[in-house]
Amino acid sequence: MTLQLHGYWRSTASYRVRIALALKGVGHEQVTHDLRTGAQRAPAFLALNPQGLVPALELDGEREDEAAVLIQSPAILEWLDEAYPHTPLLPRDALGRATVRAMAGLVCCDIHPLNNLRVLQALRQDFQASEAQVSAWIARWIGTGFDALEALIARHGGDFAFGDAATMADCCLIPQVYSAQRFGIDLAPWPAIARIAARCEALEPFRRAHPAQQPDAD
Amino acid sequence: MTLQLHGYWRSTASYRVRIALALKGVGHEQVTHDLRTGAQRAPAFLALNPQGLVPALELDGEREDEAAVLIQSPAILEWLDEAYPHTPLLPRDALGRATVRAMAGLVCCDIHPLNNLRVLQALRQDFQASEAQVSAWIARWIGTGFDALEALIARHGGDFAFGDAATMADCCLIPQVYSAQRFGIDLAPWPAIARIAARCEALEPFRRAHPAQQPDAD
Repeated sequence: MTLQLHGYWRSTASYRVRIALALKGVGHEQVTHDLRTGAQRAPAFLALNPQGLVPALELDGEREDEAAVLIQSPAILEWLDEAYPHTPLLPRDALGRATVRAMAGLVCCDIHPLNNLRVLQALRQDFQASEAQVSAWIARWIGTGFDALEALIARHGGDFAFGDAATMADCCLIPQVYSAQRFGIDLAPWPAIARIAARCEALEPFRRAHPAQQPDAD
Repeated sequence: MTLQLHGYWRSTASYRVRIALALKGVGHEQVTHDLRTGAQRAPAFLALNPQGLVPALELDGEREDEAAVLIQSPAILEWLDEAYPHTPLLPRDALGRATVRAMAGLVCCDIHPLNNLRVLQALRQDFQASEAQVSAWIARWIGTGFDALEALIARHGGDFAFGDAATMADCCLIPQVYSAQRFGIDLAPWPAIARIAARCEALEPFRRAHPAQQPDAD
């Protein structure tokens, strides 16, 4: 089976999938869609993903029933963990899995969607939001989310966000930290998050998945 | 094991979990937190869920390692499906699971978080949004999301959003339809969604989980 990751270097949702692929050592091609020009809403891509968002993971198997386009990064992470079970991204116990999925969900549902490009553009267009107001909006949802995540990491974390191995929680946290830093947010209020991020960022799979390392980075 | 669902009758994320519990016939107690008064941010609840959001599912097992508080409705749905595997909420094949999780994620990540109470309050406070502007904001994200979901249901749906059995996709879709109707949005542009919703709403487990049927409804 060949995998094509439709993404964009700065898309944090694409970055989550890149980390999972790198942690599992799964080879793939990359297809870039420039979000700044709205390339993700081109008809050819909408035919693959009617939502017109990246990432999408296109599977091209030898059998017809293996061909598919997977969308929504949390669903893609779950599929990758089922299809490539070595280097698992979920703990073995059910309560641990629920906690990792909750940490990932906190980022994917309650932080990132409020701060992505289409929402910030809507704030500017619909409410004539100034850049200072947009920055405050971003900081508000990152701050609220990181406060909760910091408490969860204090309860459940170790070398990584959950325990001592990388999980889906780290696949989602590290791109959100990248986004926070890009928006100039100081991580000092969240020492556990800062510690986990520093550790992950030093590891080869996380480095390989970093936006600046992608072929479409400018 | 006893289950306590911390929620609120009108919370669509709580409604998702109520549907899953009803589909599986899993008994549970309900603890209500009035979102209108900010009860979900009371210190006693924050100790259970540092995010201060509903739902949270409190497990009180006979063994200490069974006691836990699960948060984030998608993670709770996954845990319920693992803990009570009868009446599965995910298909048997990996690609089907990926599609159901993507449909659920589309609602949980890209529609609901943009329209929940805390975000609408922020629009009013930060941008002096009028009620007409708030309504347009809500309609925009529901419309964009339902357009994509309609296309996915056309590809993958049957009696339900995916295939001919209720899945996590329906657990998430039906509360989002309830929310859309509450906000006065006409479902006519999305006939597949309207058809699935009408079918589900006639079924006993979905009826039992409906907001109007909850003890804290007013």
